[in-house]
Amino acid sequence: MKRRPGLWTVIDGRGMAFERLLHRLRERGGAATSPRIDREVKRIVEQVRRGGDRALVAFTRRFDRVRLRPQELSIGPEELRVAERALPRRQARALKLAARRIAAFHRHQLEKGWIYRDGSGFRLGQKVEPLERVGVYVPGGTAAYPSSVLMNVIPARVAGVREIVVATPPRRGGVPLSVRAAAAVAGASALYQMGGAQAIAALAFGTESVPRVDKICGPGNIYVTAAKRMIFGQVDIDMVAGPSEVLVVADSAARARLVAVDIVAQAEHDPLAAAILVTTSSALAYRVTREVDTLLETLPRRRIARRALERFGATVLVGGVEEAAEVVNRIAPEHLQLMVQRPGRLAGLVRHAGAIFVGSDTPVALGDYIAGPSHVLPTAGTARFSSPLGVYDFLKRSSVVQASPAVLEKLGRVAAELAEMEGLGAHALAVYERLGYNQA
Amino acid sequence: MKRRPGLWTVIDGRGMAFERLLHRLRERGGAATSPRIDREVKRIVEQVRRGGDRALVAFTRRFDRVRLRPQELSIGPEELRVAERALPRRQARALKLAARRIAAFHRHQLEKGWIYRDGSGFRLGQKVEPLERVGVYVPGGTAAYPSSVLMNVIPARVAGVREIVVATPPRRGGVPLSVRAAAAVAGASALYQMGGAQAIAALAFGTESVPRVDKICGPGNIYVTAAKRMIFGQVDIDMVAGPSEVLVVADSAARARLVAVDIVAQAEHDPLAAAILVTTSSALAYRVTREVDTLLETLPRRRIARRALERFGATVLVGGVEEAAEVVNRIAPEHLQLMVQRPGRLAGLVRHAGAIFVGSDTPVALGDYIAGPSHVLPTAGTARFSSPLGVYDFLKRSSVVQASPAVLEKLGRVAAELAEMEGLGAHALAVYERLGYNQA
Repeated sequence: MKRRPGLWTVIDGRGMAFERLLHRLRERGGAATSPRIDREVKRIVEQVRRGGDRALVAFTRRFDRVRLRPQELSIGPEELRVAERALPRRQARALKLAARRIAAFHRHQLEKGWIYRDGSGFRLGQKVEPLERVGVYVPGGTAAYPSSVLMNVIPARVAGVREIVVATPPRRGGVPLSVRAAAAVAGASALYQMGGAQAIAALAFGTESVPRVDKICGPGNIYVTAAKRMIFGQVDIDMVAGPSEVLVVADSAARARLVAVDIVAQAEHDPLAAAILVTTSSALAYRVTREVDTLLETLPRRRIARRALERFGATVLVGGVEEAAEVVNRIAPEHLQLMVQRPGRLAGLVRHAGAIFVGSDTPVALGDYIAGPSHVLPTAGTARFSSPLGVYDFLKRSSVVQASPAVLEKLGRVAAELAEMEGLGAHALAVYERLGYNQA
Repeated sequence: MKRRPGLWTVIDGRGMAFERLLHRLRERGGAATSPRIDREVKRIVEQVRRGGDRALVAFTRRFDRVRLRPQELSIGPEELRVAERALPRRQARALKLAARRIAAFHRHQLEKGWIYRDGSGFRLGQKVEPLERVGVYVPGGTAAYPSSVLMNVIPARVAGVREIVVATPPRRGGVPLSVRAAAAVAGASALYQMGGAQAIAALAFGTESVPRVDKICGPGNIYVTAAKRMIFGQVDIDMVAGPSEVLVVADSAARARLVAVDIVAQAEHDPLAAAILVTTSSALAYRVTREVDTLLETLPRRRIARRALERFGATVLVGGVEEAAEVVNRIAPEHLQLMVQRPGRLAGLVRHAGAIFVGSDTPVALGDYIAGPSHVLPTAGTARFSSPLGVYDFLKRSSVVQASPAVLEKLGRVAAELAEMEGLGAHALAVYERLGYNQA
């Protein structure tokens, strides 16, 4: 029998096949930029920076094949609310409930400033302020993802960002109703019909019609990603996100059908999506793959799901809960689903994962839409060093430092000693002048 | 009389000259990369990625003109402690006091995870974990900055990062004693003698002798910056930092001599450093420039300071405290020094600044060395969207989501509704399968 690929082959959590899997997962997203694309994007970015609206509408005509005058780029809050009212009632209710829950979760992430006086009399603290303006990019293409609009805009709004603009490529038939409605429900200030590198440049530098923002979030194609990387530093950007992924840990008590559904749900996103089953039970692994086969017969998006599972699916057999945790921490998955008898214990051992779904009653799909945390999560192992999109991404801190003559007396000479050690004479003088003054 | 440039010309906070100043300040740092440098850096990064130690020592020989075997790259904690003991006693004491104070401030930034159950029975929370490994780059060149080692390493250590490695270019005479000692005092795990793009690549991908890290911080030359930008995404990086800057707000009650010393202290860092005086009093402005002239006659680093003040110095006249705050917020300075009679009121109006130094007893020099907050601060207006280096840069979050049959019953259908709206059938199925199960 021919060896079946991906999910259908069981590999050992400690062998070389696992190392190869790790490598394959990380390289998968590899925002595969090329010098040619970089050059083209650079040209677009520079032209929009210099030419403003004129360059923006010219690129829009060329790349999106839509003619817009500058004043037609923007859809204001009134028009967005019209879209919200035009949405079928059940859909509008669902979006609003999701929005309320997302806002409620994110309010827990709000931070306050603080200040204290230490033993030497120094007052030290931290001031916390929201960014002023944020741009959220929403990709075009065939599908419309209103949930992504909520998941990007609401954390910014909860943080207190005053102006949140959504940018999305214009379509001949107009921006999808669900996207416009979601922008209204999320509380976006305006929606701009612009896409690609030209949209990123317009947000980063501003044009006559587009406000310059302080941060740009949201996924996009290779041109959008290259442009974000290019303007990083001028404005902030979110993480460069790759294709989605799930790691399900399941033991012999898990229901194979549910595990299979969750795996297939991840795989239906994208042919580059990854779904890994980690289990102590080869019997379960067998049952899960059987159920996956059944699902792949009828699922509407079965071709996408099958491609993903053959290339980026895997079944990893482990000896116990510690080894399962080790596999999780090495992969650092975007979504981690724990379908084991004592999920709390395993969750405690997990150090690296974007979001942890605890227990069989918690499919990732709940988190994608309604639980509350943003579904914008670190992919391709970047959970090793980054966090879900959250309120903290839209806040920033300023240090606050206040000395007194007594503090200067106690600590000034030490500061001057260090300044002299580094050859910075005026730094030392800034202290000595004050000490002389205080002693006078 | 010839119009004198920079600091010596008074401009209006609401005129076009101010807009030009803003532009000049932001462009000043402009990590001016070129396609040629990008290509060269890409080649270096790729070769180290593939060739590991062999490529790393080859580039070290070529660029730093130092021959090292792979096992000589690293200076371990024992050797670093020897350096600490070899330091003059006063200097060692000063470094240790600074380290204690930096650690004490940063402990206030530690975050704990949290979890709550909401009205629908959903358990939602956030897990907080430190990064595992961090690399700190310390530039070579003529000067040695032990304070930068403390200010980068200690926040990571307080966050709980297990392994913190310092990378600094090898020198013929060895890495400066003060830098080695500071690495020991800060609690670094090891110091690697490697520099440039090859050091960044080694940290990002790992070699036989260099551990792969999750985040790279610290300033560097144009090659280091280009390499960091290139590997961003594989590992995290800190902000691309530009030249240092101060904005001093002073009123007629301020002592001109002190204002002048602080301005000159900033300017002595770098010919690209910026120092802006914002004042309501043209009499004070006049006295400050006179004092600056006096200081520039004797200061050891006067040539650097004068160049900086002529090009990136400015005196901005404002009508009152609100206008001063507006100027501050538009510039978003790295260092903000408030030498006014009611500094607290002005501090309250400030939204964008890296660090705020409140009152005449608090020169920036205290913050550079001994106050506690990291002196690694956002430059060139990036305080609009970024924060001082802190513990939060070395922590990351995972969302935690736990539903129950009752939650599924209440919210499952709404999630499925949204999934269907986006055409994701298996997502809806993941909910319906469970609802069927629960209803059975």
